[in-house]
Amino acid sequence: MSRNDKPLILLSNDDGVNAKGINELIRVLRGWADLWVMAPDGPRSGNSGAITSERPVRCYPVREEEGLTVYRCTGTPVDCVKLALHSGMPRRPDLVIGGINHGDNSSVNVHYSGTMGVVIEGCLKGIPSIGYSLCNHAADADFTPLFPYIRRITEEVWEHGLPEGICLNVNFPDTSDLKGVRICRQTKGEWVNEWKECEHPHGGRYYWLTGNYDNFEPEAEDSDHWALNQGYVAITPTQIDVTAYRMIDELKRWNWQV
Amino acid sequence: MSRNDKPLILLSNDDGVNAKGINELIRVLRGWADLWVMAPDGPRSGNSGAITSERPVRCYPVREEEGLTVYRCTGTPVDCVKLALHSGMPRRPDLVIGGINHGDNSSVNVHYSGTMGVVIEGCLKGIPSIGYSLCNHAADADFTPLFPYIRRITEEVWEHGLPEGICLNVNFPDTSDLKGVRICRQTKGEWVNEWKECEHPHGGRYYWLTGNYDNFEPEAEDSDHWALNQGYVAITPTQIDVTAYRMIDELKRWNWQV
Repeated sequence: MSRNDKPLILLSNDDGVNAKGINELIRVLRGWADLWVMAPDGPRSGNSGAITSERPVRCYPVREEEGLTVYRCTGTPVDCVKLALHSGMPRRPDLVIGGINHGDNSSVNVHYSGTMGVVIEGCLKGIPSIGYSLCNHAADADFTPLFPYIRRITEEVWEHGLPEGICLNVNFPDTSDLKGVRICRQTKGEWVNEWKECEHPHGGRYYWLTGNYDNFEPEAEDSDHWALNQGYVAITPTQIDVTAYRMIDELKRWNWQV
Repeated sequence: MSRNDKPLILLSNDDGVNAKGINELIRVLRGWADLWVMAPDGPRSGNSGAITSERPVRCYPVREEEGLTVYRCTGTPVDCVKLALHSGMPRRPDLVIGGINHGDNSSVNVHYSGTMGVVIEGCLKGIPSIGYSLCNHAADADFTPLFPYIRRITEEVWEHGLPEGICLNVNFPDTSDLKGVRICRQTKGEWVNEWKECEHPHGGRYYWLTGNYDNFEPEAEDSDHWALNQGYVAITPTQIDVTAYRMIDELKRWNWQV
């Protein structure tokens, strides 16, 4: 397989084109790679794999510099990936990267994450894809401790590629003292106490989605949440085939006669 | 385990509370089960596992009858499940059901589907959950051929339960001559030609998401898309653990030194 000397990377996120995380990601990767950014024009946190079907989507140029093109898009994170691949990019990207997300996408969060929506979409398109997330929601979080790891992980994926249908979900604990990388599996857990109820000034109630994460297996040393709690960078390989193969034989024995 | 004589089922969808599909689902299950409906107040097709974080969510009563309570909700399909479980239901539901969706949720569509967002959320909450979808997008599609199968499948799940972390993605071909049930895996494929470009009357372009589905393995007799094409009801067991276990050992051998 022939390859280009310099990778072309498509970047997107769910915090929006102006978030610090994606701009820090640009700072880490710029020069090493040519970057094409198509990111939402505002926050899309929790957008998961959502696509926009009820209204049209638009995109607008933001910056055009040597090795860096930035667009903002009115759609979801997944729309951003689809639209960038459809129009404008000089060639098919070598990598798709989501992030750096302001907040943890380990454990069950993978199902809600717009950042992982980006990554799963890249993977569905057959492109090696990585999501980077920091366990800190603050708008001004310090991403600099992540930089050497992001460079290393991105280079490794560029070097080795990824198997068909597999992408990487990389989460960083919020510490300047990172202990190294752990390869993990998705932690079992759930969100509880998810709604804050408020009285509407005109009557009735409204609800803010919030909640606490309940880890079902805090001692599991192969889980991504354990790794993060211990100060490790957690890399969870993630697949787009969600078939529960282990249940197929049992289901075949059930009674389906109508 | 003690159980109630009559199941209590939480229903939601992504086509909205007024869609024919969910009202036909109510018609099939009413009487056999007590039904609690919390569905979006309008179309949320393609909402995937999205949650609402940037604004509050509200819900309003629509109908209250013997064995049937219906609410409409301003949020996403997943918000609907979370809000119903948080407030109002007389007890924790025995089953969560999404649908009947107007449109196919087999293959990679599982990643975009708001109906499957409902089902995966129910599964994340530890409740046996099923998604029903018909391969017909028409607002007035005929759902009656599905009825005996929906009753049978729902009864089987109520009887056996489902293993932790596994839910069912059930898709029906658009035919009155259903050939029976096939237990399947998710078909490999992708969407292509996804954008229709239009000229905006005030200048520039806008884009509608559309596209054609490209099946990578049309001959695979164990795949859900094959089953649908042959006239079978396709049941694909689906899991919430998306870890790609088969790649963990390889990743451990990569160079992660920074």
